[in-house]
Amino acid sequence: MPIHAPRLSREGYNLQRSVMRDLLRFAVDPNVISLAGGLPASECLPLDSLKECLDTVLTRDGPRALQYSPQHLGLRAWIADYMGSRGVSCTAEEVFITNGNQHGLAILSRLFLDPGQPAVIEEVTFTGIHQITGGRDAELRTVPTDLDSGVVVESFEEALKASPSPRLAVLITDFHNPLGVSIAEEKRAELARLAAKYEVPLIEDDPYAPLRFRGRPLLPIKAYDEAGMVFYLGSFSKMLAPALRLGWIVAPAELMPRITTLRESFDLESSTLFQRAVAEFLSQGLLESHLKQITGAHRERCDTMLGALEEHLSDVARWSKPDGGVFVWVYLPEGLDTTEMFHQAIERRVAYIPGGVFSVDGSTKNALRLNFSNVQPEAIEEGVARLADVIRAALQP
Amino acid sequence: MPIHAPRLSREGYNLQRSVMRDLLRFAVDPNVISLAGGLPASECLPLDSLKECLDTVLTRDGPRALQYSPQHLGLRAWIADYMGSRGVSCTAEEVFITNGNQHGLAILSRLFLDPGQPAVIEEVTFTGIHQITGGRDAELRTVPTDLDSGVVVESFEEALKASPSPRLAVLITDFHNPLGVSIAEEKRAELARLAAKYEVPLIEDDPYAPLRFRGRPLLPIKAYDEAGMVFYLGSFSKMLAPALRLGWIVAPAELMPRITTLRESFDLESSTLFQRAVAEFLSQGLLESHLKQITGAHRERCDTMLGALEEHLSDVARWSKPDGGVFVWVYLPEGLDTTEMFHQAIERRVAYIPGGVFSVDGSTKNALRLNFSNVQPEAIEEGVARLADVIRAALQP
Repeated sequence: MPIHAPRLSREGYNLQRSVMRDLLRFAVDPNVISLAGGLPASECLPLDSLKECLDTVLTRDGPRALQYSPQHLGLRAWIADYMGSRGVSCTAEEVFITNGNQHGLAILSRLFLDPGQPAVIEEVTFTGIHQITGGRDAELRTVPTDLDSGVVVESFEEALKASPSPRLAVLITDFHNPLGVSIAEEKRAELARLAAKYEVPLIEDDPYAPLRFRGRPLLPIKAYDEAGMVFYLGSFSKMLAPALRLGWIVAPAELMPRITTLRESFDLESSTLFQRAVAEFLSQGLLESHLKQITGAHRERCDTMLGALEEHLSDVARWSKPDGGVFVWVYLPEGLDTTEMFHQAIERRVAYIPGGVFSVDGSTKNALRLNFSNVQPEAIEEGVARLADVIRAALQP
Repeated sequence: MPIHAPRLSREGYNLQRSVMRDLLRFAVDPNVISLAGGLPASECLPLDSLKECLDTVLTRDGPRALQYSPQHLGLRAWIADYMGSRGVSCTAEEVFITNGNQHGLAILSRLFLDPGQPAVIEEVTFTGIHQITGGRDAELRTVPTDLDSGVVVESFEEALKASPSPRLAVLITDFHNPLGVSIAEEKRAELARLAAKYEVPLIEDDPYAPLRFRGRPLLPIKAYDEAGMVFYLGSFSKMLAPALRLGWIVAPAELMPRITTLRESFDLESSTLFQRAVAEFLSQGLLESHLKQITGAHRERCDTMLGALEEHLSDVARWSKPDGGVFVWVYLPEGLDTTEMFHQAIERRVAYIPGGVFSVDGSTKNALRLNFSNVQPEAIEEGVARLADVIRAALQP
């Protein structure tokens, strides 16, 4: 049928379709080893126990589990306890259930940021963070991130204190997507202090923290927040299963009516059935053994990847050495362009995400993101070997 | 802890917390007969078959049913066929899965409407429609709705042709929330023609159409759309279960990349587990008998309500006579204020939604919305009798 093209809004027009999506069309060949994804280890998803929890809830709660419903108080209370165990003192009234961290970013960005206003994000960061500021047409101030210790605090302060005052800042705390790095412990209190000092809401995006497989857990930035200026985002997508579409915001209780209204204007509510099933899973105490199992698999795969990188690429590349999460970030020599290299990689049957995708100004061309969590160790070894071939070929004069 | 109040965005500040929410706190007493809800008949929700479909999908598809996933092609194809059966010719590529109709409204309003631009909605309409235009700070043009035949077409055209041109219009086609009325058949082609003529995207919000319990099904406005200017919103919330959080947009395929990107910036995706379970339910052919059962219950309850209104209030009120959906709208004599009357109603242990909640300019004070779908017939009779007492008392000089 003939179509009149309706005029689009600035947001509809400005939001960039991710280059990643177009590139990944080439990675569907089953012979391609894909290190491009971001999924938790499939074999370790708690399939049987979630099935049982769904059955339990549908049998016990009946039609109430299928109707509209207020946010599940038991789940909010569990999350408050869990946050308490991680050093964040909060009550169920300070927990708001979302459809995951992107949803939390969308809600909080709209709560604080009018179109065109200044916002602070990292130079290299998750594309979903680009989208919430890019879609708002924000005046972006970007700060660099150290591959060992996370966001550079001095640069962050410069961005916060510049005039006009930014309306929000976003940081990923643990096992950064795509960098794999965690913000160093000694920086965290200072980041909370800066948010308070400059009165800039700091959104702490922290979906990977429960996926630590090495080292001592660190307190989130929110644990150091005495001013109520840090807004914590957590998710069940990586710690339990993406298809549950559940996450949470920790925010002051007096902002909850506005957060609730804003969220209802998006999509009313999260599924009460999934909220009840996850609450059941958690109340049965199943989380600890699940996390032990899945992070065990992730650790083995990460170690395999770090070993293969060392074996094949130690002379030409450097990379992050994560203690959890699902990603490793690799820097190649200056001058290489991993987007251009992508087609050679696909020909060699290995896929990754080019670093430029995560770079706000597109300048980080000589880097790439590798996923280790949902790939078998043998495939990781072979994939990195193939990748090394592609890189060496690209380095030929 | 002491809180710095972060500055809010215009959207965060402007979005009004619904008066309804505050009023309904009074309606939780189990002795209150609540005609205030909007839920489908609980007894008729397909609890057992959905449970079986979830089990089937988790067993058959394994971890894939718990991971991130593209939109389910089988579900999109079923929806395209279903729309075809309702006179809308479209393919799976023209179907986009949402979390329900509010989600579709949020996505399309942001695709077309920049903050402050003109938009056309009905004078009395669903609060979620107020939210998407109010939250966007839209320059609102409202049009009246006839209680027998739906939106007044002449007024609608005036609003479309006024300068500057509106960026979108929203109409509810069948069994309007809160009015219960459907747009008359002879108006529908004209509405599609007007959207095309003035090149204004018309969002057709139609969650209740499958809940017809009387009369011949009418083609949606989209069935008359030759210009691609009508954007259809459908939902499984009322036809299957609210907790599934699934609905759809029908839109031209060339807009899908933008719709996809915009939606991903909100919350990535809808649950693949629920998409697969609903596709399973539908492919087993279970929908027809489910709709027969639930609309049977709704018809009985609606007839009970209409009979009780006739018995108790025919001398002082007039009301819509729905052929489906879940709501009846009641007009009382001028001068009565159903918001003021609400507290007397709660004292008399009956609850409704005051009409002012749905009125964009707050002027419709002498009306109220009644729900019949999720209340037992005996309670409906008793509730309307109590309501009549309250109204008669309010009419005393």
